[in-house]
Amino acid sequence: MEYFPAPLEKLVEQFARLPGIGGKSAQRLAFHVLSLSDQDAREFAEAILDAKSSVTCCPVCQNLTAGGLCSICASPKRDAGTICVVADPRDVAAMERAREYGGSYHVLHGVISPMNHVGPDDLEIKSLVQRVSQGDIQEVIMATNPDTEGEATAMYIARLLKPFQVRVTRLAYGIPVGGHLEFADDATLVRALEGRREL
Amino acid sequence: MEYFPAPLEKLVEQFARLPGIGGKSAQRLAFHVLSLSDQDAREFAEAILDAKSSVTCCPVCQNLTAGGLCSICASPKRDAGTICVVADPRDVAAMERAREYGGSYHVLHGVISPMNHVGPDDLEIKSLVQRVSQGDIQEVIMATNPDTEGEATAMYIARLLKPFQVRVTRLAYGIPVGGHLEFADDATLVRALEGRREL
Repeated sequence: MEYFPAPLEKLVEQFARLPGIGGKSAQRLAFHVLSLSDQDAREFAEAILDAKSSVTCCPVCQNLTAGGLCSICASPKRDAGTICVVADPRDVAAMERAREYGGSYHVLHGVISPMNHVGPDDLEIKSLVQRVSQGDIQEVIMATNPDTEGEATAMYIARLLKPFQVRVTRLAYGIPVGGHLEFADDATLVRALEGRREL
Repeated sequence: MEYFPAPLEKLVEQFARLPGIGGKSAQRLAFHVLSLSDQDAREFAEAILDAKSSVTCCPVCQNLTAGGLCSICASPKRDAGTICVVADPRDVAAMERAREYGGSYHVLHGVISPMNHVGPDDLEIKSLVQRVSQGDIQEVIMATNPDTEGEATAMYIARLLKPFQVRVTRLAYGIPVGGHLEFADDATLVRALEGRREL
């Protein structure tokens, strides 16, 4: 493309670099920015710079924070003796939405994935082991995704934590609430049967 | 959502305001921005401000330009005596991609649409009439979209230009090249028949 003024082309290119945004969408987004008020465009640009410069990782749980301890680690209402280990900050958000868990988190920022050249040292595993070794931790709940990599990561960490004689648990597998048995895959049904409970 | 640090939430909101970007996509885009290098994030923000501040409309044809005359109006190779009237700057890009047209353009920035409260005065119609009245124009090609609003806008402008005794034409209707007759709608087939030519 070379039919738009250079600054517009540049903006289209920037949008096209975003994940899931193709050429046509990038064009539409760039034209939308042109149609914004000066104020709105400035706010958009500032939001990018702000987020990039002020969002860091919590020194304790590695969750995203706007500086210092994250709101969960800083809260006196949360049980610091329980750690829920997740792969991604978005998983923290998912758990928090469920409004059931009252402990703290540890965000790995990924899972072990030899295919993508991600090893244990690329993740926040050392900081987790340190937390468990130093603190008064009763339980570590492994809440990585129930796929191969999440599974392997959970197993790997569980083994690392064994010497500390802390209780390590894993989220239950089973049929999702509101799901249809008919559409459940075999592996899920096997796990749901295995984990069945007295009524 | 209130599970991410405020600057990140703000960025998610900004992305969610863009057309065609839902909540989940906005979240993914915001996290992508966090993963950018400082340099890349700055370039993205600057591209927004740059495009917004430096892209204006060409004083002659109202196409987008980075300042002053647009590259088409400024080119001595283009025939200034022919004006192709389009609704949107993206239509100029489409015409240019076809590499057939060598005249100039006039961008209306919309079409007459009573449903959306867009009247003739909201469009660049006056500037077109002025161009035709002042300049040495041989032909005005109406290239608005072949839908109801584009059609009505073309008819309206053709009537306005009548006093100037300039040749006003409309893009041909017919079956699109590479299309399938079997999938062509009735209206298109009727127009294709009407516009048939000697081989």
